[in-house]
Amino acid sequence: MVEHGALDIMCLNKYRHSSSSSSSSENDKKDIPKEKASLSGDYPKKTAEFLSGQYGTNLLLVGAAMMLANAYRVRIVKEEHLLSFLTCLMILQLIWMLWYILVRKRHTNSRTERDVHATSSWIRGGLSLLAVLSLIMDAFRIGYYVGDQSCVSAMLAVYPVIHATHTIAQVHFLWFHIKDVIKSFETFERFGVIHAVFTNLILWGSGVMSEAEHFLSNHMRRLTIVGYENLTTVHPEPLCNCTTSTCSLFLSSLAYLYPFNIEYHIFVSALLFVMWKNIGRSIDLAHKKKVPTKTQSLAVGPIMGLVALGSTIGILVVYISNMDDSIPARQSAITMFYIYGIVILAFMCVAGASGLVIYRVDHVPLDTSKNPSRQLDIELLFGSSIGAWLMSWCSVVAVVGTDSNPPYRWMNLAYSLLIVFEKYVQNLFIVESLYREKEDGEREDPELPSSSEIFSVSSSLAPPYNGIINQAFDTPDRSCVTIENGQEDNRQVHETLDVRKSLEGPLPLENNGEEPLNVKRQILKNISVFLIMCNMSLWILPAFGCRPQYDNGLEEEIFGFNIWTTVLNIAIPLSLFYRMHSVASLWEVFRHV
Amino acid sequence: MVEHGALDIMCLNKYRHSSSSSSSSENDKKDIPKEKASLSGDYPKKTAEFLSGQYGTNLLLVGAAMMLANAYRVRIVKEEHLLSFLTCLMILQLIWMLWYILVRKRHTNSRTERDVHATSSWIRGGLSLLAVLSLIMDAFRIGYYVGDQSCVSAMLAVYPVIHATHTIAQVHFLWFHIKDVIKSFETFERFGVIHAVFTNLILWGSGVMSEAEHFLSNHMRRLTIVGYENLTTVHPEPLCNCTTSTCSLFLSSLAYLYPFNIEYHIFVSALLFVMWKNIGRSIDLAHKKKVPTKTQSLAVGPIMGLVALGSTIGILVVYISNMDDSIPARQSAITMFYIYGIVILAFMCVAGASGLVIYRVDHVPLDTSKNPSRQLDIELLFGSSIGAWLMSWCSVVAVVGTDSNPPYRWMNLAYSLLIVFEKYVQNLFIVESLYREKEDGEREDPELPSSSEIFSVSSSLAPPYNGIINQAFDTPDRSCVTIENGQEDNRQVHETLDVRKSLEGPLPLENNGEEPLNVKRQILKNISVFLIMCNMSLWILPAFGCRPQYDNGLEEEIFGFNIWTTVLNIAIPLSLFYRMHSVASLWEVFRHV
Repeated sequence: MVEHGALDIMCLNKYRHSSSSSSSSENDKKDIPKEKASLSGDYPKKTAEFLSGQYGTNLLLVGAAMMLANAYRVRIVKEEHLLSFLTCLMILQLIWMLWYILVRKRHTNSRTERDVHATSSWIRGGLSLLAVLSLIMDAFRIGYYVGDQSCVSAMLAVYPVIHATHTIAQVHFLWFHIKDVIKSFETFERFGVIHAVFTNLILWGSGVMSEAEHFLSNHMRRLTIVGYENLTTVHPEPLCNCTTSTCSLFLSSLAYLYPFNIEYHIFVSALLFVMWKNIGRSIDLAHKKKVPTKTQSLAVGPIMGLVALGSTIGILVVYISNMDDSIPARQSAITMFYIYGIVILAFMCVAGASGLVIYRVDHVPLDTSKNPSRQLDIELLFGSSIGAWLMSWCSVVAVVGTDSNPPYRWMNLAYSLLIVFEKYVQNLFIVESLYREKEDGEREDPELPSSSEIFSVSSSLAPPYNGIINQAFDTPDRSCVTIENGQEDNRQVHETLDVRKSLEGPLPLENNGEEPLNVKRQILKNISVFLIMCNMSLWILPAFGCRPQYDNGLEEEIFGFNIWTTVLNIAIPLSLFYRMHSVASLWEVFRHV
Repeated sequence: MVEHGALDIMCLNKYRHSSSSSSSSENDKKDIPKEKASLSGDYPKKTAEFLSGQYGTNLLLVGAAMMLANAYRVRIVKEEHLLSFLTCLMILQLIWMLWYILVRKRHTNSRTERDVHATSSWIRGGLSLLAVLSLIMDAFRIGYYVGDQSCVSAMLAVYPVIHATHTIAQVHFLWFHIKDVIKSFETFERFGVIHAVFTNLILWGSGVMSEAEHFLSNHMRRLTIVGYENLTTVHPEPLCNCTTSTCSLFLSSLAYLYPFNIEYHIFVSALLFVMWKNIGRSIDLAHKKKVPTKTQSLAVGPIMGLVALGSTIGILVVYISNMDDSIPARQSAITMFYIYGIVILAFMCVAGASGLVIYRVDHVPLDTSKNPSRQLDIELLFGSSIGAWLMSWCSVVAVVGTDSNPPYRWMNLAYSLLIVFEKYVQNLFIVESLYREKEDGEREDPELPSSSEIFSVSSSLAPPYNGIINQAFDTPDRSCVTIENGQEDNRQVHETLDVRKSLEGPLPLENNGEEPLNVKRQILKNISVFLIMCNMSLWILPAFGCRPQYDNGLEEEIFGFNIWTTVLNIAIPLSLFYRMHSVASLWEVFRHV
């Protein structure tokens, strides 16, 4: 909206003059650029955003401070303190959501603007699935409390009950209200939404911490079994005589549900963040067109991807079972992991590099229009790669500096360098794919709604993609918008007009959707699918406990246990987020090419 | 440039058509929007930026990995390894700078475009001062090596020599080439500049680490003297019989020079980052107008600020000298620090809040034009506040959770909460000040150059500020640009035209510069000056070793020594950067209101 040029202003003037005289109803408002709409309020938009953003950040930092205090061995701040804090935050969010839903219900007659791109059916489905798994986790927690209730705090029962209520209410909220564009009580509701965003982020952090703690104590137990070290677990579980026979079952099952609970919370906070960004925004109400995803000529990519996924499952099972075994078995499992990693990463590098070579051969100008959402997606991708890069460079330093010489020493070096290189190439491939202009007349128009319904942190703000052909039919008066994009070449404007002219002729519309894919696009589509599956594989391994960085001992020797586990506790969650986010971005690439 | 509307495109068309037929000389190029200029190259701009940005990040991470390895007690990666790495980076940068200067010399006849806002005389002066202090530090290091050469690595002599050469060459480069806008060999030079940026960042990190280490060993020594703990220093200095009598003098003097060396490197990397951002950019060559900074009616702010600065020096001296004393003396010094902190922060909160109240009373619409640089400045401000906020919330958790009860326990709570609140209010004040539109016709025009010559990380990209009056005289054909800013109100366009009309009358131009400041602006100017001096005070204290977070013992009890020093080692450098950056931003506010 901000980029609207002079012609657009002229187009809008009639709305302005009519709305300024009458009391501006919501229908009028939507045609006025957001600057005007928000500035009419009492509090300037930018300051209101900052006000609530700072509140949210401080909330997160309070949570972080409590978690850090909880991480210390002496534990003056106990787990129940942290859980009470989390419970308070969730109750606050519940009250806010209830208030919001009631207020909306009372104003059902006044139409609420909705951002049609804020979510899609498959996002809702995935979310609900993750929520169900979180609910099962809560049930297990309650079951564990029932068995151990004699010696643990009552907070351990209150927390899962509130968490379950929170999960159900939040999923309901996300199903029915995530698309709302809030226009009334802006400043207050900004606080509500940002509170929800950061509550979920803190729950994510707390999940990550419990998972890391669980993983560490498991790691210690294994080391003790193997005979490497003679440590007791760092944070001993309370010694309780379980009154039911299922306690240990509950505890061990919890471990498999952690990754889903963690992804559920980061997923929700991303969706809510988009809702926060939408507050006070003016949405273009043009209808969304489904562009069919062409899947012909997809063979090599999916097949290779499936092979990668299958072998991943195999590696995971063998690795986990060998870790409890003797030292040689452990070493062979680690070696196996590195060989697998080197092979899959080499293929990924080749795939990404071929994509880049295709782009070099095939000159298409980049789409340089302003697009804050694409920028955000790219920044998240880049920011989250830093975790894995730090881990890899630490491994490189360790391998070069160490004196010990296990069989996997140089494999670790190759693996780490390939991780760096693979992320480097993959990021470049994704950036260039998302920034390239559409070929054969299907140019992107930033003013038109997106058809890509993928989960990407800012999918609702994502680069809209719609064939110019549909656009010419649906919104004929759009010519005003198209011409006004100043940064575009005259040539392209003429092209647009030509396309439109040709459409007025007898050319059948359906033909355009079924034109055969050219060879380059076929290759690019195959590359995207292959990379998607590989990234899923590389998410599965660390998410379910296959973390050779803990087991190989090289880095620990150079960095010491404390520094190295701190690095891993920061880097592994970032790395998991990277894999998830890159799957989403590559899905967008797949639809884009 | 990106926001140019349709009318602008029409204005530019004549240039385009003429330049596309002839071989485009540099003079022609500058009139074409940057998208066209960069896309004509072989490599797309966005990908080239990402390519070099990722290289720089990885360079930083290699450095971080080596520093982490060096921080571990066992130290397989020794200091000389780290220093050799740094030396290699500096030599690479030296070679690149030499190459750059030689290539520029050869092409002296072809005019280089320059970004006039990239630096200013007082930035150069400050930089040179910091560089001189860094050179003295290098001299001390060499002196220390001469005394201890029997038992330390030769790297300890090579490093300061190279560092001194690097400092001199870099200052020369910054004096004569920082304003260059690079248009040839873009992809290659992007690597060179980003290498320089990250080399300085790694040197900054290494400086921060040595400083923290020095501070910690000093802290330990004090604790041993006082009898709190009986630890030997964590990283013992090599036991050497110094051959000259000045060794200990050199070592102790080094401590006072650390803060300057650290600020020098972060300062340089910010300047070079702006140069990197300028590569391939098209600069508007309109001349810079000096807008006189009005200083009348400045009394209360500067006087109160000077009182704050003076008392800061007093507190610093008393604090440092008391720290080596007995336990009661230490406790009274800490108590004194907290009282001082509470008073100064309370004043700062009141000042910031009054500023915000004035803004609430006085409705002016926010300037919502796109301005990536202002956005960057605000993001840096917000990002660097996170360090101090985390530290404060940890203190709050510690004060509430602790069992011990020193006299300053609740003062620490008040101080920490005030730190949070003060940053919250100050950030809001700065954001709103920078986003408010100019009153009395002096509106900002994003297309016109900035007159603010302050050190702000992106001052060259900063919101340009120039009276519409000068603009009307200098560049009459600008009317095209002014009208085309689509997001502006019609009213404002009419205002502009009215102002211009009135100027064609007999009104003398100079009168506008000397109109008496109104009361609100007087108050805002005083607030800005006061806040600038307070922020300087709060930079001085931690920079020169007044860090009660180490000395009060409360947080250490709750978080443990390792976690707490890790938090401090991350948070204190961020907090120092925040104070420096907020001084720069407040200076901009001072000139803006």
